[in-house]
Amino acid sequence: MSKVAVVLAGCGVNDGSEIQEATLTLLYLDQAKAEIHCFAPDKDQVDVINHAKGEGSSEKRNVMVESARISRGEIKPISELKVDDFDAVVFPGGFGAAKNLCSFASDGPDCSIDPEVERVVVEANEKKKVIGAICISPVVVARALKDKGVNPQLTIGTDQATSDALAKMNAKPVKAEVHEAVTDEANRIVSTPAYMLGPNISDVAAGIQKLVNQVISMTGK
Amino acid sequence: MSKVAVVLAGCGVNDGSEIQEATLTLLYLDQAKAEIHCFAPDKDQVDVINHAKGEGSSEKRNVMVESARISRGEIKPISELKVDDFDAVVFPGGFGAAKNLCSFASDGPDCSIDPEVERVVVEANEKKKVIGAICISPVVVARALKDKGVNPQLTIGTDQATSDALAKMNAKPVKAEVHEAVTDEANRIVSTPAYMLGPNISDVAAGIQKLVNQVISMTGK
Repeated sequence: MSKVAVVLAGCGVNDGSEIQEATLTLLYLDQAKAEIHCFAPDKDQVDVINHAKGEGSSEKRNVMVESARISRGEIKPISELKVDDFDAVVFPGGFGAAKNLCSFASDGPDCSIDPEVERVVVEANEKKKVIGAICISPVVVARALKDKGVNPQLTIGTDQATSDALAKMNAKPVKAEVHEAVTDEANRIVSTPAYMLGPNISDVAAGIQKLVNQVISMTGK
Repeated sequence: MSKVAVVLAGCGVNDGSEIQEATLTLLYLDQAKAEIHCFAPDKDQVDVINHAKGEGSSEKRNVMVESARISRGEIKPISELKVDDFDAVVFPGGFGAAKNLCSFASDGPDCSIDPEVERVVVEANEKKKVIGAICISPVVVARALKDKGVNPQLTIGTDQATSDALAKMNAKPVKAEVHEAVTDEANRIVSTPAYMLGPNISDVAAGIQKLVNQVISMTGK
């Protein structure tokens, strides 16, 4: 049985993990009989967006506490994620990945990254664990591995500015359709564009199902 | 193409819609090529639960604003739901259904119900639309139709007290496995126990997929 860590970044596309992507990740991992453990940074979110209006608010919310809504309460701080205990680490998308895991949403390729998130990605890469990156979360992987001489192949959708930003972080952007998952065999990283392309949940589901099945296959369990 | 209204009750199993059930409902409706519109009451939630700790908090959140996290911003107040415009209405579960749509979580079979939710269920029943009820949300349907002489067959899991409460609201509780959906043909209502039984997301997904496909089949489109 593969043991997989899923790293969440809040609860909601505009300020946290994209809920549908995160749920579909859990669904396909469970259907593949993986043992799933969810983690998130135990810190305040960068912001809280009113998703009905698409506007900011003055509320304060905690990334891990909100992430627990998706995982039905089962969650731990990412500081407790021991990479050695897992076969794979998967990052669903949503603006939370680019706000709360790293600062890509505001700072682009010069972004900072949460130190624990950086540790997890770097250790996973060093220890040859499989990494899955969905939607915008390839920017997290690229930022973590920026100065490691790794140059991972990663999907990011079709927006040229975002692709260029990924390349500035020493990754190789790869074009893919929403129903595809792309594998960087050498670096053991699988990615899929998901809602970077969309448009609908069943389109996104097809790519995430392929990503999950590829991740599980590469764990060899 | 079937046109389906999905009624949400917040965002998170303990104070809103169960996120996984709601997302799976959207997934299977989209895979069945349905046109989906999400609605929720535009009012304060009964409570806000810290899902990491399972404890209450003093926060205030709005049912519709939080529901919009699940639907990626696409949501309308349930007061704008015109039943005539739809072929079916589906209610995902989660404590929000028993807190924000009706007061079953605190008041049991003597619960009150949101007037707009009651209107939607009663009209859907009168106009022979298909109703889908997942997890705990059969209590919403039972409460709305309590005095209408309808006596709907509904799943609710295996807890005896909850089954008895459903019967006190003049419904007929029906036993079902998590991977099953039960159809009350006469009343055009489909229900599945989902996380009333669980235990895992793929178990719940199997039942919700059957419910959605049965709902779509019964719309005849």
